[in-house]
Amino acid sequence: GVSQLTLPRSYTRPRRRSLAHRSASRSGALTLWTCVLLVSGPAAESSLTPGEEMNGSGNLMDFLDEPFPDVGTYEDFHTIDWLREKSRDTDRHRKITSKSKESIWEFVKSLLDAWSGWVVMLLIGLLSGTLAGVIDLAVDWMTDLKEGVCLSAFWYSHEQCCWTSNETTFDNRDKCPQWQTWSELMTGHTQGAGGYLLNYFLYIVWALFFSFLAVSLVRVFAPYACGSGIPEIKTILSGFIIRGYLGKWTLLIKTVTLVLAVSSGLSLGKEGPLVHVACCCGNLFCSLFSKYSKNEGKRREVLSAAAAAGVSVAFGAPIGGVLFSLEEVSYYFPLKTLWRSFFAALVAAFTLRSINPFGNSRLVLFYVEYHTPWYMAELVPFILLGVFGGLWGTLFIRGNIAWCRRRKTTQLGKYPVLEVIVVTGITAILAFPNPYTRRSTSELISELFNDCGALESSQLCDYVNDPNMTRPLDDIPDRPAGPGVYTALWQLALALIFKIIITIFTFGMKIPSGLFIPSMAVGAIAGRIVGIAVEQMAYHHHDWIIFKNWCRPGADCVTPGLYAMVGAAACLGGVTRMTVSLVVIMFELTGGLEYIVPLMAAAVTSKWVADAFGKEGIYEAHIQLNGYPFLDVKDEFTHRTLATDVMRPRRGEPPLAVLTQDSTTVEDVEALIKETDYNGFPVVVSRESERLIGFVQRRDLILAIKNARQKQDGVVSNSVVYFTEDAPQLPASNPQPLKLRRILNLSPFTVTDHTPMETVVDIFRKLGLRQCLVTRSGRLLGIITKKDVLRHMAQMMNQDPESIMFN
Amino acid sequence: GVSQLTLPRSYTRPRRRSLAHRSASRSGALTLWTCVLLVSGPAAESSLTPGEEMNGSGNLMDFLDEPFPDVGTYEDFHTIDWLREKSRDTDRHRKITSKSKESIWEFVKSLLDAWSGWVVMLLIGLLSGTLAGVIDLAVDWMTDLKEGVCLSAFWYSHEQCCWTSNETTFDNRDKCPQWQTWSELMTGHTQGAGGYLLNYFLYIVWALFFSFLAVSLVRVFAPYACGSGIPEIKTILSGFIIRGYLGKWTLLIKTVTLVLAVSSGLSLGKEGPLVHVACCCGNLFCSLFSKYSKNEGKRREVLSAAAAAGVSVAFGAPIGGVLFSLEEVSYYFPLKTLWRSFFAALVAAFTLRSINPFGNSRLVLFYVEYHTPWYMAELVPFILLGVFGGLWGTLFIRGNIAWCRRRKTTQLGKYPVLEVIVVTGITAILAFPNPYTRRSTSELISELFNDCGALESSQLCDYVNDPNMTRPLDDIPDRPAGPGVYTALWQLALALIFKIIITIFTFGMKIPSGLFIPSMAVGAIAGRIVGIAVEQMAYHHHDWIIFKNWCRPGADCVTPGLYAMVGAAACLGGVTRMTVSLVVIMFELTGGLEYIVPLMAAAVTSKWVADAFGKEGIYEAHIQLNGYPFLDVKDEFTHRTLATDVMRPRRGEPPLAVLTQDSTTVEDVEALIKETDYNGFPVVVSRESERLIGFVQRRDLILAIKNARQKQDGVVSNSVVYFTEDAPQLPASNPQPLKLRRILNLSPFTVTDHTPMETVVDIFRKLGLRQCLVTRSGRLLGIITKKDVLRHMAQMMNQDPESIMFN
Repeated sequence: GVSQLTLPRSYTRPRRRSLAHRSASRSGALTLWTCVLLVSGPAAESSLTPGEEMNGSGNLMDFLDEPFPDVGTYEDFHTIDWLREKSRDTDRHRKITSKSKESIWEFVKSLLDAWSGWVVMLLIGLLSGTLAGVIDLAVDWMTDLKEGVCLSAFWYSHEQCCWTSNETTFDNRDKCPQWQTWSELMTGHTQGAGGYLLNYFLYIVWALFFSFLAVSLVRVFAPYACGSGIPEIKTILSGFIIRGYLGKWTLLIKTVTLVLAVSSGLSLGKEGPLVHVACCCGNLFCSLFSKYSKNEGKRREVLSAAAAAGVSVAFGAPIGGVLFSLEEVSYYFPLKTLWRSFFAALVAAFTLRSINPFGNSRLVLFYVEYHTPWYMAELVPFILLGVFGGLWGTLFIRGNIAWCRRRKTTQLGKYPVLEVIVVTGITAILAFPNPYTRRSTSELISELFNDCGALESSQLCDYVNDPNMTRPLDDIPDRPAGPGVYTALWQLALALIFKIIITIFTFGMKIPSGLFIPSMAVGAIAGRIVGIAVEQMAYHHHDWIIFKNWCRPGADCVTPGLYAMVGAAACLGGVTRMTVSLVVIMFELTGGLEYIVPLMAAAVTSKWVADAFGKEGIYEAHIQLNGYPFLDVKDEFTHRTLATDVMRPRRGEPPLAVLTQDSTTVEDVEALIKETDYNGFPVVVSRESERLIGFVQRRDLILAIKNARQKQDGVVSNSVVYFTEDAPQLPASNPQPLKLRRILNLSPFTVTDHTPMETVVDIFRKLGLRQCLVTRSGRLLGIITKKDVLRHMAQMMNQDPESIMFN
Repeated sequence: GVSQLTLPRSYTRPRRRSLAHRSASRSGALTLWTCVLLVSGPAAESSLTPGEEMNGSGNLMDFLDEPFPDVGTYEDFHTIDWLREKSRDTDRHRKITSKSKESIWEFVKSLLDAWSGWVVMLLIGLLSGTLAGVIDLAVDWMTDLKEGVCLSAFWYSHEQCCWTSNETTFDNRDKCPQWQTWSELMTGHTQGAGGYLLNYFLYIVWALFFSFLAVSLVRVFAPYACGSGIPEIKTILSGFIIRGYLGKWTLLIKTVTLVLAVSSGLSLGKEGPLVHVACCCGNLFCSLFSKYSKNEGKRREVLSAAAAAGVSVAFGAPIGGVLFSLEEVSYYFPLKTLWRSFFAALVAAFTLRSINPFGNSRLVLFYVEYHTPWYMAELVPFILLGVFGGLWGTLFIRGNIAWCRRRKTTQLGKYPVLEVIVVTGITAILAFPNPYTRRSTSELISELFNDCGALESSQLCDYVNDPNMTRPLDDIPDRPAGPGVYTALWQLALALIFKIIITIFTFGMKIPSGLFIPSMAVGAIAGRIVGIAVEQMAYHHHDWIIFKNWCRPGADCVTPGLYAMVGAAACLGGVTRMTVSLVVIMFELTGGLEYIVPLMAAAVTSKWVADAFGKEGIYEAHIQLNGYPFLDVKDEFTHRTLATDVMRPRRGEPPLAVLTQDSTTVEDVEALIKETDYNGFPVVVSRESERLIGFVQRRDLILAIKNARQKQDGVVSNSVVYFTEDAPQLPASNPQPLKLRRILNLSPFTVTDHTPMETVVDIFRKLGLRQCLVTRSGRLLGIITKKDVLRHMAQMMNQDPESIMFN
């Protein structure tokens, strides 16, 4: 009956291997998989010469370790068992170590295996750095394409165009004859209402075109490419399987559509999606090494490091990236991963710098340098900015989640393309008239962060200069604001309102969209407004008691750019609830420990204010909205319930579906599999004693019985299934027994029914369990799965337990 | 029989509380503890009106939560149970939360409780920053005191003395009339062999005086104040109890003796001891809040943060400090602790800066700024320095451990004062003639790190200047070395050999001694020598193919200071095996991401080279030498053993000492306690069925029986002990039963005998268990304690399992 078995493609390797043993085996296509199962039938005993593969195999681990299809893998949308993955890897490692002593070649192979982790990190760093550079360059060019084109070389952005031109003057770096707006190109006029309207119109058309292209590409080629990706990556890293989420197509489409989405001028950023892109790179390179591709636990170590590389290139902050991965994204983060993440993040950052997309050979996205210290009294506005950030975080999370829920549940979700088009249209129409929203958001943030130097030509630096003052360039005292600043102020206020509202509707649409940049923009605008207000107050009222001590006339005491930065940190913190990584990222932007205290004050305040309204950040809120089985490490479970309150079966429910070790027939097992949809079944000594001996996975059981029925002659429906070490000698008239001890997990995790749920939750979190059996004085009482735990937690927090969807 | 009970001092509080209930109780000294135990005897039922303390108490947790003496605490040199500590804290938190709704006062109290963590961090930061500043100032002064004295104010150090003097010229900052060496002061001569010898003699005398004072203080007042303290702190943080190690006396004596030890000129640093000092501060402030003082788990969170603050002030590197605590010291490091550590580290750093001991308002210990980039070809010497660092690490660890073992096992250990005196004498005699060893080690490192600017007067910067060259000050091309450099080179080479040898014998003596600074000094000397060699090679052979591309004549291409820094990182990495935290600390010193790559290359190489000779760093080696029960998170356990191979009793040993739930008499229990010294006993249904129902601690059992015998009339030697929920109604003739369900842990941790040891080790590590019971199909087979696990691990690594000494 062997020929009936259609071997899947991945079967090739074990098959070729086993050919060496063909002479000793009865069946030509004898593979490992059949080897293992045939062992149990006496009819197959003569064929048991499978060579080294069987050496020393006495327990489940060996059996699961070999590369045959499906066994030891997981189904889509299921949770992995971290303990099993870990012991599979230890087994693999053990095998390689013991082999490495046999020959030099094996020794070299073992060295290569040990180095593969570093190689993967290097590759991830190189590719994600390169992709980030390409994305930056493309976004730059396409954002400017909405306004005009460079005549000398159409692939130049506005800045590049004017930098390469000889006719650019220092005073007006943005003006050069090579760069023409669309209206200039079409009509020849530089000014006028007609030209303005034409530019306006074309700006909207380009925006609509970009976003339409983006949403179409996502819909047609890679539906997983939408959103920021961080909630899903968090869930994946916690041990969930979403096939294709980090695939090659997702990588390609997300990179392309990210450029389009950002260029379309929508209120979204590229930072979150860059983490997703880097994780896709990580997943891609995992497939080069079986160490990582065949082990879901090890793969997640690589993905954690990739996430760090993603943040590293997003902000040019390698240390911040590692801490972000540690604090925000990762679930299992051993110290080895910390070191490798750091390496990947550094490689990525230096790759990006050698591409030099910002043209200033700076590593960081927003490079700022302040010249004046801050004063204690300024902590008051900084803390107020923290409060603002917390409120913004709450508003954003509530509004965005409400809108996303509406999208999920109503007709709205059926027209994603239309939604994107409409939002892009509204954004473009409202954004163009305001100079602060017309340009790209990261340029805006950059300008808001900057201190007003002597050479600054921005409207925000239009202060009234004292002609009598001659001073070094860097040291500019506080001055009264000129008309430009006042114009800028109300334009910024309008931009703030616009950004706050539109971002709520943008995040979560079916295009790649990050929220770091929009959140920071909101905070930076608010911060700059507050900063200018404080500065003017200090200038005009320097005799007030609060200013008296530190702000004499003619001194440079308030830096509005610092306020913008503090505001940005506060708003980002309110939305994401990041703490250390946020402060470190900001520290890497400024490069001075000086400004850590204001940033920390704002970040702490913002987190406290936002936490007062709801504990979860935007990522956790989206995880919950989507019902992913994510067991948050940060949530504290403080309720008094016991394991007995959570386990299944509940009182009144039918008893737990169990198998007995030596009295269940194949038929019974098949009936049980058919009737129930549990992922596994406990095996007990007998139904009367209910003493637990092990746990068997549904998937393994199905495969084992299917195989035995096909391969083993004597196995029929009323064969008895034995999980014991030795099957009794039965009279020949009885059907052949089926021995399945090999697929039995002999060390299932158990707790007693009196165990407090907080301990159970702790065990699930720290050991990454999938299920846990409940016993009382040695008797099996019930089972708790990760889903049960999550549902119980949802219930205790007065949430709908049915929102947890996956197992 | 109440009056017979001598109440320990800590008894006072519960006693006063229970006075409120006196009218309802029969015994005047009725305390909580007796309350709880009396409940079990029917004779005491009428006295059961203990008020709120008994409300809702239905399980073990409540009972353990109350502040009565001894129960719920641990003995000295024992391991804590992290799970129990955690659930005790959750209980406490739950109680405060539910109470907080009752009145405004309770609400305020709950707020204070929530804030206490931050308050503790603030206090730790302030105190450890202050202490570090004081230590720095005192060391500065006393180090200079060995050479001379300031006439204008004897409490000024050499530098302060000359800074405050008006007669100091810029060219020779170290010379001023106010500062006189001892020979000048005594003889009036400035020069001459006699003066030199007098200075030499007094240098040695001062050194001997300081070190004698240090070792005597340590011996008499606080024996725990010796050493670096980091191995012990690692062990304590992993859950071990060493009473007094972080006490007030240790804090005081360590601070004082650290100053003396460093000033004596011994080859030791203050960085490790500063971590110990900061942890003592942490422990001190823990006692202010019962949240931390009464919970060993929570206390360790504070100590982790304190360790971060310690490193933060040692190097002025707050982020590096947090990562050091995370990577090197801590065991249980939740994200909340990360954030708080960061806060404590920042407060400490800023406190130190406001004291400004270095007089330059810099935060960092060695502030350096380099002006030239590094080139790819330089990676070769950097990696060679990494190899050197790894070799030095191996040599140091082996040599130092061998010497310390000899000290432990031979007569040597009996004369600690003599040993310190002899080593100090040798150090002083050999150090004085060489200018690079005479000064303090941190000054030496600082000079070696520094680039040769135009104004540098050091001998190391004695290059032959090209008089035709006029250039800006910062940009100094490579030049041929002058005679001063060559003199410096051989002096440095001698200093290197001296430092290498003397440090091996110094670390581990009975005085406070850190090894960061000596290790860094070794690396910095080696690095500077290599750096100068490369520089001169590049200058004289700039046509060689390796120099051709990047080192044209007249260019500034090699920075010897950078080599010193890379060497320091490599040597520190080789000794401690730090990775990320090392690089981040070094990054914070230079402040530029530029130089991270060389540092990383050297750190990685050094770790790999050192790991090839032995996996453990110096701290782990000392932990092992002392036999502390430390379960390292970094070690991977990869052997194939099962729980059944490790558990007690072994085959042939007498069966496990167990209690039965309803058939053991008080006499039997007392006999069992007398005969065995186990920390606890499993309780089973009956000896025949061996079904486990719980686990009872020896300590709790002793206290419970003692109390019951004193308080409960009917309890006699042949009373039956019941662990069941209800004791049966016995005829009056039978002795009163003793119900002890309350002290029974109903959720002991169990694994099956087939569980692989790697899983068991993982569970012990991640959950912080103290013991774990082993079952097979519901029957109790044996027990595995943390000590068993550690012994097994030592055995598998071919080490002596008897080296693990504590439980």
